[in-house]
Amino acid sequence: MCRELKDVGEWGLLKWLYEKIGKHFGTKENVMVGVGDDAAVIDLGDGVKFAITMDALVEGVHFELSYVMPSELGWKALSVNLSDMAAMFAKPLAAFVTLALPSDTTFLWVRQLYRGMIELSNKFDVAILGGDTSRSNGGIFISACVIGKCGEKLPTRNAATPGELIIVTGTLGDSALGLLSLQKLGRKAAMRSEALKWLVKRHLQPMPRLNEGLTALATGLYGCAIDLSDGLASDLRRVAEMSSVRMCVWLDRLPMSTQAMQACKLFNRSPIEMALTGGEDYELVITASPDRAYELCEAIERACGTRCSIIGRVERGGPDVYGVDERGKHLELVGGYEHFKS
Amino acid sequence: MCRELKDVGEWGLLKWLYEKIGKHFGTKENVMVGVGDDAAVIDLGDGVKFAITMDALVEGVHFELSYVMPSELGWKALSVNLSDMAAMFAKPLAAFVTLALPSDTTFLWVRQLYRGMIELSNKFDVAILGGDTSRSNGGIFISACVIGKCGEKLPTRNAATPGELIIVTGTLGDSALGLLSLQKLGRKAAMRSEALKWLVKRHLQPMPRLNEGLTALATGLYGCAIDLSDGLASDLRRVAEMSSVRMCVWLDRLPMSTQAMQACKLFNRSPIEMALTGGEDYELVITASPDRAYELCEAIERACGTRCSIIGRVERGGPDVYGVDERGKHLELVGGYEHFKS
Repeated sequence: MCRELKDVGEWGLLKWLYEKIGKHFGTKENVMVGVGDDAAVIDLGDGVKFAITMDALVEGVHFELSYVMPSELGWKALSVNLSDMAAMFAKPLAAFVTLALPSDTTFLWVRQLYRGMIELSNKFDVAILGGDTSRSNGGIFISACVIGKCGEKLPTRNAATPGELIIVTGTLGDSALGLLSLQKLGRKAAMRSEALKWLVKRHLQPMPRLNEGLTALATGLYGCAIDLSDGLASDLRRVAEMSSVRMCVWLDRLPMSTQAMQACKLFNRSPIEMALTGGEDYELVITASPDRAYELCEAIERACGTRCSIIGRVERGGPDVYGVDERGKHLELVGGYEHFKS
Repeated sequence: MCRELKDVGEWGLLKWLYEKIGKHFGTKENVMVGVGDDAAVIDLGDGVKFAITMDALVEGVHFELSYVMPSELGWKALSVNLSDMAAMFAKPLAAFVTLALPSDTTFLWVRQLYRGMIELSNKFDVAILGGDTSRSNGGIFISACVIGKCGEKLPTRNAATPGELIIVTGTLGDSALGLLSLQKLGRKAAMRSEALKWLVKRHLQPMPRLNEGLTALATGLYGCAIDLSDGLASDLRRVAEMSSVRMCVWLDRLPMSTQAMQACKLFNRSPIEMALTGGEDYELVITASPDRAYELCEAIERACGTRCSIIGRVERGGPDVYGVDERGKHLELVGGYEHFKS
């Protein structure tokens, strides 16, 4: 009974919450989607469905001041929340921000943080409407909340169906390799290489795949969607558990950037491992029926210029996730980022 | 340009935000109320107005683990947000919670925190729908966000009009004296006195004045409303600034509990000063026209059993707040809690 969170793990804590809070509130009228998905969804009876999400960045856990500029931090704090909207195919309307800051933070620093947030919010026409500021005695804490409007059919995490193909936008592992560049070389040295600079930007200023999600919504050709925050293997496992399916990942199809391949060589990392376990890419995974998946990929590529790849298939069984390499060999997939675990 | 937040102060930071963010986003269609009020309000064109608010509790700033139990902390984290809903006369629908916790936090502690939150949410039929958990390297941070449905006429902070009377629900200074009891005597000793125990509960488990707000809404007899978080003088000053008025406070009319009077005696504090500057009472201040203010008080007392007091008057001029004592002497009012200021 007195286990500590580092023994229970983030996933253990979340499972308890889903069970406890989900049972308690999930059956409430108006609640379309409760805890455990990318965003909660409320229907107010007049046909308008709202998605709401909340995500935080904690100094020393999600970022270090030694390598991130305040404007990048503001961008990212908003971006991780917009990415949850993207995963619900929602159009974000407004954002709210809570800051806890040490007293010796400069006013200039805070203004630059907001500048980054406003820069991103302008790109997607999201209003920053409020929040709270407080002193902190233990580092910087940024919590943001975004509210958006959903479509009729929700791409919830329990909506993956056996037979569907698994689509991913963009490339995988970039963000983790950007972070590695910052950690191994420091910001100044990393920024001298064009490839690493690009990876660092993918880590510090991820672009939420909102238009990609809205394009998918418009086609109607989708099952479930999730955004990649903890790493492909970890995030697919969440879908597998909530949809009660197996997710088969074709390891030779994982899309990687040339910059990521360069960095893997430089840091002596396995590209496949980075693609499977690297967190914070904030790309979208979408499942779609096998006869329409290519159509969906094309629609997104045409509308947004974002490359889409088919990387696997949803199967009966599980819930679990496994990989198949180019010789057909099956591999168990573990890993991905988890808070608390020691 | 390189001033620190402790020199700028919370109010200085917020003013900059209101200016910068308010100008930028305040004129956006759908935005009824932007930054600077108790809650933001969005209208989605179909006549449904939503209030959204976000507020945080930070260890070492808003609470100390030495005197608060996790269930009380969960209650309070939700309560301060529900109080913002109360101040917008909104009916809360759903809550979202972000926790950043040290790895050695016990699972039991987290479950008790949620128990307190669920206890309060059940009282007001609010669904807890999600949020985020993260590790923290610097103490506990709890951020919550609540969304609710508003009425047609919003009691915004800029809606106080000269001539209106100032009404306050409940009693003033209780929470600050409860905190003082904890700080001076420790929890165990404070809990031995019935009076102090009551004050401690007022501090640790404030009851949001939601029904009082909804009752006021139903009467239609109101100008502006605000909830008391930083202290009467401080919070009235915000109304004065946003409504461009003077607020005159009748110092002999400030409602105090017998428990607070006892504690003032025990700790050698001035009751009037505690009533004016004590923070976190989470009572509502409502302005109403002089010929209808008594009617509004009666409606709230009848529907909710909550005492209401008329404590002053809105006047032309200012923006500022002043007190008048029983001999008619004018006193400038300063004080109230402000983050960052050294």
